[in-house]
Amino acid sequence: MSRNTFGICFKVTTFGESHGPALGCVIDGVPAGLPVDAAAIQRELDRRRPGQSEVTTARRESDTAEILSGVFEGVATGTPLAILIRNCDQRSRDYGALAEVFRPGHADYGYFMKYGRRDYRGGGRSSGRETAARVAAGAVARQLLATLGVKITAYALEIAGIRCRSFDREEIERNPLRSPDADAAREQLAAVRAARNSGDSTGGVVECVAEGLPAGWGEPVFDKLDARLAQAMFSLGAVKGVEFGDGFEAARRLGSENNDAMTAGGFLTNHAGGVLGGISTGQPLVFRIAVKPTPSISREQNTVDQSGGSRVIAIAGRHDPCIVPRIVPVVEAMTALVLADLALLQRTAQL
Amino acid sequence: MSRNTFGICFKVTTFGESHGPALGCVIDGVPAGLPVDAAAIQRELDRRRPGQSEVTTARRESDTAEILSGVFEGVATGTPLAILIRNCDQRSRDYGALAEVFRPGHADYGYFMKYGRRDYRGGGRSSGRETAARVAAGAVARQLLATLGVKITAYALEIAGIRCRSFDREEIERNPLRSPDADAAREQLAAVRAARNSGDSTGGVVECVAEGLPAGWGEPVFDKLDARLAQAMFSLGAVKGVEFGDGFEAARRLGSENNDAMTAGGFLTNHAGGVLGGISTGQPLVFRIAVKPTPSISREQNTVDQSGGSRVIAIAGRHDPCIVPRIVPVVEAMTALVLADLALLQRTAQL
Amino acid sequence: MSRNTFGICFKVTTFGESHGPALGCVIDGVPAGLPVDAAAIQRELDRRRPGQSEVTTARRESDTAEILSGVFEGVATGTPLAILIRNCDQRSRDYGALAEVFRPGHADYGYFMKYGRRDYRGGGRSSGRETAARVAAGAVARQLLATLGVKITAYALEIAGIRCRSFDREEIERNPLRSPDADAAREQLAAVRAARNSGDSTGGVVECVAEGLPAGWGEPVFDKLDARLAQAMFSLGAVKGVEFGDGFEAARRLGSENNDAMTAGGFLTNHAGGVLGGISTGQPLVFRIAVKPTPSISREQNTVDQSGGSRVIAIAGRHDPCIVPRIVPVVEAMTALVLADLALLQRTAQL
Amino acid sequence: MSRNTFGICFKVTTFGESHGPALGCVIDGVPAGLPVDAAAIQRELDRRRPGQSEVTTARRESDTAEILSGVFEGVATGTPLAILIRNCDQRSRDYGALAEVFRPGHADYGYFMKYGRRDYRGGGRSSGRETAARVAAGAVARQLLATLGVKITAYALEIAGIRCRSFDREEIERNPLRSPDADAAREQLAAVRAARNSGDSTGGVVECVAEGLPAGWGEPVFDKLDARLAQAMFSLGAVKGVEFGDGFEAARRLGSENNDAMTAGGFLTNHAGGVLGGISTGQPLVFRIAVKPTPSISREQNTVDQSGGSRVIAIAGRHDPCIVPRIVPVVEAMTALVLADLALLQRTAQL
Repeated sequence: MSRNTFGICFKVTTFGESHGPALGCVIDGVPAGLPVDAAAIQRELDRRRPGQSEVTTARRESDTAEILSGVFEGVATGTPLAILIRNCDQRSRDYGALAEVFRPGHADYGYFMKYGRRDYRGGGRSSGRETAARVAAGAVARQLLATLGVKITAYALEIAGIRCRSFDREEIERNPLRSPDADAAREQLAAVRAARNSGDSTGGVVECVAEGLPAGWGEPVFDKLDARLAQAMFSLGAVKGVEFGDGFEAARRLGSENNDAMTAGGFLTNHAGGVLGGISTGQPLVFRIAVKPTPSISREQNTVDQSGGSRVIAIAGRHDPCIVPRIVPVVEAMTALVLADLALLQRTAQL
Repeated sequence: MSRNTFGICFKVTTFGESHGPALGCVIDGVPAGLPVDAAAIQRELDRRRPGQSEVTTARRESDTAEILSGVFEGVATGTPLAILIRNCDQRSRDYGALAEVFRPGHADYGYFMKYGRRDYRGGGRSSGRETAARVAAGAVARQLLATLGVKITAYALEIAGIRCRSFDREEIERNPLRSPDADAAREQLAAVRAARNSGDSTGGVVECVAEGLPAGWGEPVFDKLDARLAQAMFSLGAVKGVEFGDGFEAARRLGSENNDAMTAGGFLTNHAGGVLGGISTGQPLVFRIAVKPTPSISREQNTVDQSGGSRVIAIAGRHDPCIVPRIVPVVEAMTALVLADLALLQRTAQL
Repeated sequence: MSRNTFGICFKVTTFGESHGPALGCVIDGVPAGLPVDAAAIQRELDRRRPGQSEVTTARRESDTAEILSGVFEGVATGTPLAILIRNCDQRSRDYGALAEVFRPGHADYGYFMKYGRRDYRGGGRSSGRETAARVAAGAVARQLLATLGVKITAYALEIAGIRCRSFDREEIERNPLRSPDADAAREQLAAVRAARNSGDSTGGVVECVAEGLPAGWGEPVFDKLDARLAQAMFSLGAVKGVEFGDGFEAARRLGSENNDAMTAGGFLTNHAGGVLGGISTGQPLVFRIAVKPTPSISREQNTVDQSGGSRVIAIAGRHDPCIVPRIVPVVEAMTALVLADLALLQRTAQL
Repeated sequence: MSRNTFGICFKVTTFGESHGPALGCVIDGVPAGLPVDAAAIQRELDRRRPGQSEVTTARRESDTAEILSGVFEGVATGTPLAILIRNCDQRSRDYGALAEVFRPGHADYGYFMKYGRRDYRGGGRSSGRETAARVAAGAVARQLLATLGVKITAYALEIAGIRCRSFDREEIERNPLRSPDADAAREQLAAVRAARNSGDSTGGVVECVAEGLPAGWGEPVFDKLDARLAQAMFSLGAVKGVEFGDGFEAARRLGSENNDAMTAGGFLTNHAGGVLGGISTGQPLVFRIAVKPTPSISREQNTVDQSGGSRVIAIAGRHDPCIVPRIVPVVEAMTALVLADLALLQRTAQL
């Protein structure tokens, strides 16, 4: 588990750049005997795919998943399951102008300082496009978790500062923002449009809930359930904050207010968000992430080029004015990867 | 890197329970040639030690570090550096009453469900006491980082909902709360006392700043600087939220407000908190964690026992009415472990 | 580092089955700035390719390597370098008859017992075909090692019990057995033909020499140079023994005979084979592996089927009567993977 | 899994030098609920302990194991199990003369070249004394394996070129060489004495058998059963060769001779040594290791010092004229560590 590999027992390695030939993943540790539903993998990729609405980039990618190994007659064999996603619409010419310039708010400068060079086409590996491979892997993890009764749902809780006031699970996939509140979604959409029209972008807060976890998942002390989920979430470029249960609000409470009392019938509250001491409590797992506004904007910005000279840029290209709806399936996928891994590890916890 | 081991090149394994014979750590990957200052390790342990003020537990522990290996004539040899900390004041009798009962807000229930049994004495390994071993390891990491010009400082930004209004670095270690604002510290102290006197507890927000990092540290995509730090922070039992730079506030901003522009003289702002795309930017690294109120309170609480029967408990024992000041050196230590590891990994990034 | 991933800093994950759509690898940790020679990768694959002579299987595979990521403008970027090799000549119909039967000397039975099912087409992942992905990865490792002056050469030291009596480096790639002794090669070839004609197969001993290593590579105590090389060699299905330097003969010597004395001019002998205490000595690294005779033979054999019933089989299909010449580039590749990894790790050994 | 940590699910980290304060290990992944027999750990340490007979070093060490964590009321809790072994008889003065000189056949030169310095007292971490920690960890692994019906036995198959002609399991622990043949043991002892009296040393071959393994253990492709065992064996400083089943002899056989045929009643032979394709077959696991003669001899040897100057040394100190009998429990311990790890991993192989 390091760099481009994630997980201990359910272990995923990803590869690929925005404008290279392909993206993909290798999943090592899929238990033999798991039926693998290729169509369900494709459905998850379709949810993340660009070009679906006015709030997402116009880049056209079919994001077709090809399973290269690890499945025989529709069932996992226990060997590595590799999935390939070819890039199709690599309009590298859009990026030539940016070859020498570091885009503000992007990883460009860091990559250059780290590696002494960078693939500037669409951000290379730092592009959000890299997450397609994670969604494919996550789709397999979800199939494993489904056999255990675990269900993961993420949605936009807040966009451009506008928070949902109601929750309708059915609504989530109906509006382009993946907002569970139809009314809020209309206001959020207006705010995203306004930002886009002024060459700007917006961010938001995504909430994720996982139901059906038994108590006992999570590995003290460094692979705690929340520790691994937080690592997973911050491995997404746009994430600037993560909180579980009451999160930062818990810091303002008294112990008597924050503790979740129990009775013979179970917990009375869920301030903890389903995790205590890094181990699942059996209550719904609840966490939220802060998603920053897309750094690619067409407004003019001050920056520098690789020689250190000052430059002013306006980023043309094709970008998401709000990445929140497209990050939702990615959050679910990363959550699934963590849970599948901890579920398998739990098999070794007792004699 | 899994379970009780953290890090890839600078790799720490910890062991020990609250009321067992000892705690300790093994650090694998300390570069040979590093002078190891045993007194500096002890100083960090002393900062975390209980019994220092009215806001911390009265448990008496000398927390004396003994270096068992890996150092010869005061210098690291490149072999594993093991540090032992004996437990002294294990008043297990305090905990007999809790042997069968799950304390609300604690890891008791999770450990029992995970392992089918638990060491109930002081919470066993889920006790905050476990972090002593991390502080010892972190002290060695800090010595490595010092040779690279990196300096880490954490402090209480907010306690019991009272936020600091000013910042005086010298003040931090002067007041018992590790607050950088002497005025706020007085109010915070009053709030902590009030909670303690009513058998309750308080939480707070800790901010951590690391200065002197070069640009380029952090390993895309799963060992990003922020991803690893978040894992490190959530590996602490009391942490419920982590945010970098503007954090959750960034989710409410426009891209044009949130992006950090650059000029030939460097970045103009640091909304990102020193990390972009998971790689350090060379600006100060800034993040905050939400610390929940100590779950151990003497007020009566509803809970259940191992047989599932309802129980009412009031936790006597010795507990911190506010864990924030004692978590400060732990946050610094975990930050040091992450940075030391990523600093060594960076040595392999280029040809 | 586990299961289908090998290495710590130079980390390779492989995937693929004999008769699935493709094989491949993901190399994580290629230092940015390394020029990547795609033609050299292909050359190594061509050396391992089937169908080259009368002593190898007639299966026709072009084994064309496609680089999917991690290289930009011919140079490694520091991101994962994925290589894809499509399977072309998957004559699965040859294997239908073996779907229910465990071939003696093969992994069939083990896979079935381990996973509860198996991909019986050509042995699935247990096929020697899986090593193509390793050869591709090893070719990249060799390019990194070449920048450090390290050169790896393997050859058939013995085939069918006939040992080479002379060593001519130029001869190795001239004869179909990769034997460094043209005279011995003729006798060996006759023995292989005789075995093939009687529906049987032969094995041999491969020797590998790595020159140009500096002293100091290898990580005590579990990632010692010889420990990692041995793991690498036994990860090949046909290998039944590994020895370094004088190997098993050393067990029959006195200490005074076996120790390699040193003078100001260097070591006087190399009984150790270039490794002491698991660390390279700067002398040539020398080791040998025992390669068992190919288990696929057309002679009748007793075995059982998945229901436990006794069966007699004669394996038709296309098989190597002697796998030794084709394992030679695989041994070199695995050696390169180990050395590249330890070379990068060594960068973290000292302050 | 790297450097001083071994294993994936049953994971052992060791520390300690020959003449430092202590040696020890941390075992992460002991399944909760395993009764831990401290006396059995001590018994294994006693078997490896120096000073037991005329063929072993006269160094006096009690090698007392203290369990520091992970056990509560005699049962594993699932948290890291740390074991401490204090060094007692560190006669560092014996080694002052060797501070500047590299002993032939030892790791001294490699350590110095790797780390730029070394703990010269008794070889520091490269001393065979380091293996005490492994024996302690292995003793816990054996207790886990015993619950699964697995039994491991190693013995001296050959010493100083004299091979055992008969096998009596009861004899092994009766003679000082751990030889299963009382007659051979007498001859072997005479040979060891002769070597010792002439200031020299001898080596030998150890065979190890593990019985009771089910079919299915071992993780293709890099954590194969034999690959992991070979890594484990070569992680011991004295080992120069490893072979499974018929080993190097298999390289001289025809496929029809080497394949193990099966009938409804099971395998008819065990040429493979219980492992095929890296997975256990359910037959006894059988392997042999070549142990080189102890490099510490009192005869004069040519060597160099740290400045590169030629020197002649005769090593006084206290050394084993034949390390074979003391390596036997270490081989068993390392085998147990591998098997325990693969046994736990197997729990994740199927849905």
